[in-house]
Amino acid sequence: MARNIQSLERAAAMLRLLAGGERRLGLSDIASALGLAKGTAHGILRTLQQEGFVEQDEASGRYQLGAELLRLGTTYLDVHELRARALVWTDDLARSSGESVYLGVLHHHGVLIVHHVFRPDDSRQVLEIGAMQPLHSTALGKVLSAYDPVAHSEAVEADRKAFTDRTVCDLEGFERILDLTRARGYASDVEETWEGVASIAAPIHDRRRMPVGAVGITGAVERVCPRGELRPELIAAVRDCARAVSRDLGARRF
Amino acid sequence: MARNIQSLERAAAMLRLLAGGERRLGLSDIASALGLAKGTAHGILRTLQQEGFVEQDEASGRYQLGAELLRLGTTYLDVHELRARALVWTDDLARSSGESVYLGVLHHHGVLIVHHVFRPDDSRQVLEIGAMQPLHSTALGKVLSAYDPVAHSEAVEADRKAFTDRTVCDLEGFERILDLTRARGYASDVEETWEGVASIAAPIHDRRRMPVGAVGITGAVERVCPRGELRPELIAAVRDCARAVSRDLGARRF
Repeated sequence: MARNIQSLERAAAMLRLLAGGERRLGLSDIASALGLAKGTAHGILRTLQQEGFVEQDEASGRYQLGAELLRLGTTYLDVHELRARALVWTDDLARSSGESVYLGVLHHHGVLIVHHVFRPDDSRQVLEIGAMQPLHSTALGKVLSAYDPVAHSEAVEADRKAFTDRTVCDLEGFERILDLTRARGYASDVEETWEGVASIAAPIHDRRRMPVGAVGITGAVERVCPRGELRPELIAAVRDCARAVSRDLGARRF
Repeated sequence: MARNIQSLERAAAMLRLLAGGERRLGLSDIASALGLAKGTAHGILRTLQQEGFVEQDEASGRYQLGAELLRLGTTYLDVHELRARALVWTDDLARSSGESVYLGVLHHHGVLIVHHVFRPDDSRQVLEIGAMQPLHSTALGKVLSAYDPVAHSEAVEADRKAFTDRTVCDLEGFERILDLTRARGYASDVEETWEGVASIAAPIHDRRRMPVGAVGITGAVERVCPRGELRPELIAAVRDCARAVSRDLGARRF
């Protein structure tokens, strides 16, 4: 049993390795990065390839992630209860706010975007479902850190990078922000992750009052936070949406 | 080594099982579906859960696919060379045709959609990246079957289901369609997969002239195929797009 588990852990480590940094790696790179003998690494890679989790470029012999991951990842979205319940409400939020809407859950020391509704205009926008956001600087991440104890300890232990001059990196300042978030029921990110971009997010709770995700809007700082003040109607719209999804998940109202 | 590979194959089979049919399964269901002892199945599931590939519902104890698959699947898209090269051209095709555009590759006995551009109007549309289409009835699938020998043998061996009255299921008729596809350089699907929907697709070749994917448009049969005739300007636009992407991939023009 222990041996089975070890080969699976090694396979997962290979996929993570191929998902970060270089993304196209030769057998030797993979074996040495994971401290494995070449033969061992090759056996795992060959099986991953046969199952469609890894593809090998014919010309260079390098490995990269495979198509089966996309198929399975899409199926993950299909069975995601939170996402299914949120679809209608996030559409409404995008329409009423005029901004793009993101739904995020805690994953892998960050926020995994499981749904993204484009800003309702004709501009070209890139779909960010499956992308990750940092916990300490984004509105979604602050909400998760404020309400989910696991997210909180991950954010506290993490290396909190400064993305802009406004990112709050020191622990004391970060904890103050989380206190404020819990007191107000929402979090914001005004140019703390991306220059020129502001976000507002609120927590989603399930029937056991557990925080299961966060929903928020993101837009140009000039629209979301004119003259340094978050627009109150946007805060209200985000919190309305979060409450509606929570209610659909069975959270009681009092 | 053989043992390592077996545990990986079993883990992949579990993920495929959770991706089809029920999608939320208990330990006993999984063990019996795969012919494994419960202890063996549990060891694999526990490791998959620890790596984020599987999640367990706290209330029911049932297993479902995990968030790590979405993160990895999105990374797969990021490194997909064909998709990267096709982004601009497929945007142009959606704009010039006024219809939605799909880019597909052969995967798992079907067409995996790796890019989808919405029809450029304000209607509500569902993103289908990561979805699968059948090889024998769709325009993308016929193109892959006509040009890729692997796709061809998979389509020939498959159980070719009738989705509508117009689906061609018999082998002789199917082979005739593939001959026609090769002769014309494109394939169509006029209500053979979905009632009321018509598609046109053309092959994309790489620098070694290998068929690496197919690109096509899909829309209401009344617009794409008025009075039973595919609109020639749509055929031309699809083939232009396929040629442009092929050229970007290094395919020579003569």
